[in-house]
Amino acid sequence: MSEIPYKIYLEENEMPTQWYNVRADMKKKPAPILHPGTLQPVTVDDLKPIFCEELAKQELDDVTPYIEIPEEIRNFYRMYRPSPLVRAYCLEEKLQTPAHIYYKFEGNNTSGSHKLNSAIAQAYYAKKQGLKGVTTETGAGQWGTALSMACSYFGLDCQVYMVKCSYEQKPFRREVMRTYGAQVTPSPSMNTNVGRKINAEFPGTTGSLGCAISEAVEAATTQEGYRYVLGSVLSQVLLHQSVIGLETSTALKKYGIKADTIIGCAGGGSNLGGLISPFVGEMLRGEANYEIIAVEPASCPSLTRGKYAYDFCDTGKVCPLAKMYTLGSAFIPSANHAGGLRYHGMSSIVSELYDQGLIKARSVEQTSVFEAATTFARVEGILPAPESSHAIKVAIDEALKCKETGEAKNIVFGLTGTGYFDMYAYQAYNDGTMTDYIPTDEELAKYMSSLPTV
Amino acid sequence: MSEIPYKIYLEENEMPTQWYNVRADMKKKPAPILHPGTLQPVTVDDLKPIFCEELAKQELDDVTPYIEIPEEIRNFYRMYRPSPLVRAYCLEEKLQTPAHIYYKFEGNNTSGSHKLNSAIAQAYYAKKQGLKGVTTETGAGQWGTALSMACSYFGLDCQVYMVKCSYEQKPFRREVMRTYGAQVTPSPSMNTNVGRKINAEFPGTTGSLGCAISEAVEAATTQEGYRYVLGSVLSQVLLHQSVIGLETSTALKKYGIKADTIIGCAGGGSNLGGLISPFVGEMLRGEANYEIIAVEPASCPSLTRGKYAYDFCDTGKVCPLAKMYTLGSAFIPSANHAGGLRYHGMSSIVSELYDQGLIKARSVEQTSVFEAATTFARVEGILPAPESSHAIKVAIDEALKCKETGEAKNIVFGLTGTGYFDMYAYQAYNDGTMTDYIPTDEELAKYMSSLPTV
Repeated sequence: MSEIPYKIYLEENEMPTQWYNVRADMKKKPAPILHPGTLQPVTVDDLKPIFCEELAKQELDDVTPYIEIPEEIRNFYRMYRPSPLVRAYCLEEKLQTPAHIYYKFEGNNTSGSHKLNSAIAQAYYAKKQGLKGVTTETGAGQWGTALSMACSYFGLDCQVYMVKCSYEQKPFRREVMRTYGAQVTPSPSMNTNVGRKINAEFPGTTGSLGCAISEAVEAATTQEGYRYVLGSVLSQVLLHQSVIGLETSTALKKYGIKADTIIGCAGGGSNLGGLISPFVGEMLRGEANYEIIAVEPASCPSLTRGKYAYDFCDTGKVCPLAKMYTLGSAFIPSANHAGGLRYHGMSSIVSELYDQGLIKARSVEQTSVFEAATTFARVEGILPAPESSHAIKVAIDEALKCKETGEAKNIVFGLTGTGYFDMYAYQAYNDGTMTDYIPTDEELAKYMSSLPTV
Repeated sequence: MSEIPYKIYLEENEMPTQWYNVRADMKKKPAPILHPGTLQPVTVDDLKPIFCEELAKQELDDVTPYIEIPEEIRNFYRMYRPSPLVRAYCLEEKLQTPAHIYYKFEGNNTSGSHKLNSAIAQAYYAKKQGLKGVTTETGAGQWGTALSMACSYFGLDCQVYMVKCSYEQKPFRREVMRTYGAQVTPSPSMNTNVGRKINAEFPGTTGSLGCAISEAVEAATTQEGYRYVLGSVLSQVLLHQSVIGLETSTALKKYGIKADTIIGCAGGGSNLGGLISPFVGEMLRGEANYEIIAVEPASCPSLTRGKYAYDFCDTGKVCPLAKMYTLGSAFIPSANHAGGLRYHGMSSIVSELYDQGLIKARSVEQTSVFEAATTFARVEGILPAPESSHAIKVAIDEALKCKETGEAKNIVFGLTGTGYFDMYAYQAYNDGTMTDYIPTDEELAKYMSSLPTV
């Protein structure tokens, strides 16, 4: 038994009391987000009709390094945080690697993922502003579940537009949200103008994330006392998710461990950005150096094959434009089972860090991801979410490289959640019917050729 | 913020190194289990063809108070234990009760319940004995999942006979087991004599737990190098589950908390017995006193309405007889959603403690249980298993009594697991279609009139 425990749990008094805003330490900041009408940088006033005022301020603040976590949010965090930093002794043994592998496990809460870290913050500011409720969209359902829990805690109404095919095919996620008191509406619905229009144009459509976003935004802006909230991509979300990286950093320091390689899966960038922020901060301030790897699905390769350009954040083109690595807002990812990683773009913070060469990116195919997930589950016990398993795949690859070189690297990865609601995906893998899909250069070029001219 | 944290986590060096065998401190021991053929007390030799030898010894040992937890098992425990003892601050606030409510949460592992505590022990002894694998049955699937994880860890073959209707209706549980490498067979199958016989007699049957047990026992005894394992009822299982109570007791002592009321759900008795063992030990040794409440479903009320008598442990009457509170081995509980509590009998240890007046019992109806579950989920975050929610219901009832009397009692209950694979049940509750069922006295009398004469 090593002196490093299987699970490093911080004491409650070691938990962060401030979020870290990595933008403050960036000399070259992420490009400003632009108003979709004027193409000028948005102001807090522009964002106020859609977002809570405090969240709009956080979205645009790229100078304040630390922002106080309100006590009410810290109290909620205490119900499921600190999350453990786990030493993967059994995985190391299985791989026979000299590397030391650690993972920050964010799945030990009913929402099953890290999404709760930002959901509770967004719900808090909505409540503080005196709102009645919030609206959002959800695809796979992790964000919707997290938001339902957060709203239930603060007594806020929660309206979730759930992509119709997910609503029908993932009844369990839907019921978790309903148990937390959320109104879950299959999208496109007859509640909104945009929903009615789409239903009329495409009878029998099973919906899309882009349509659900448009419905949620319309519902927020047409009901008194409602605002729209979003679970990834935005800089405010990465700010809240910095709690992951801050806890990881404190836990490593507590045991005198210096990470060499830090790995996270990346869809919109919420988990990756949160995990790496404090470490990138050290790099930006010249205090330390890390190898940071963002892992994305080969079927939706925004960092590894996209363009760094201004693009719309939503398919419906009603939201602001952000400069980011993007495959084009019309890009429809194939039905990869990692629903949480099927976004055409990437957080503007993560995009800028990647552009500056501070982080690397790698894309992996889904059957290899499920192979890694199964290996991990069998030795470490936890059944990982498909999204998280992208990070596992690369962590295993890196540990196997260490086996060849003999290096005892410290590899840290983010295990964002559990796969209990993704068993159809595991079934496809178990049955040997899972396939991979990599878009061709021609396909990608088609969508990227129509990026907006800014 | 009180000085008692939201979650009390023991350090790894505070975890138990020995299980506690409450039988050793009982002056009047549970009655011996009897051989189904001879009706004489069974010996280790009688049990060896079915159970691993070490487990057979543990089953019959009612004198050794502490039994060393082998290091290999303690290493596995470290992957998901210690489990937190949570102070339910938010539930207390919601109820406006002066009571202090604590729950020992056993659901933070992929099997989703406390079952893993015994599964890993049983798999370890099977491996140590040089066996190839083990067989078992599963209904709802918690035990099968836990055993699959444990066998995967030790590289043992795991054959699970899953009641056919569950196999078809709960594909997710099945896929978790398959991901851990288990062979999951719908029961009745064509693999065994008993399965073929039942399929021939009742074409199209969807199976029963009794039939699945019979198939698993046949499979264990007819394959070289296999033994049968069971997840509840047995005294060896309660021994392994004492890790729950031992951790709870240590955590309470660490913060100077004296429990007044201890509450657990009870089906076969594995969770309840494990949780209460160390506390009952204190009572038996005259060191302390506690109010202990076993909570069972009104649809399957073995303690509150059963007879204390010798009965068969299985419907097929091939297993030994135990003296226990029973509704008769032919009793078929109604389709209560808490699948883990639908057993006709009760652990002989729990039965004897109940008969001696050391514990109380209460039965509750399922709609009230889901009401309590929903209240709990909304404020405490965790979506509880239907089984665990029986304990929540009574904990809330007791906390509300404290509100009337003004007593600041310390209420401790066992939260055995999560409900992620029970969302059909939550859906029925959310839709308002859930019903209650209480068997009539006449129905119960019918089954209890045919108890074996010993």
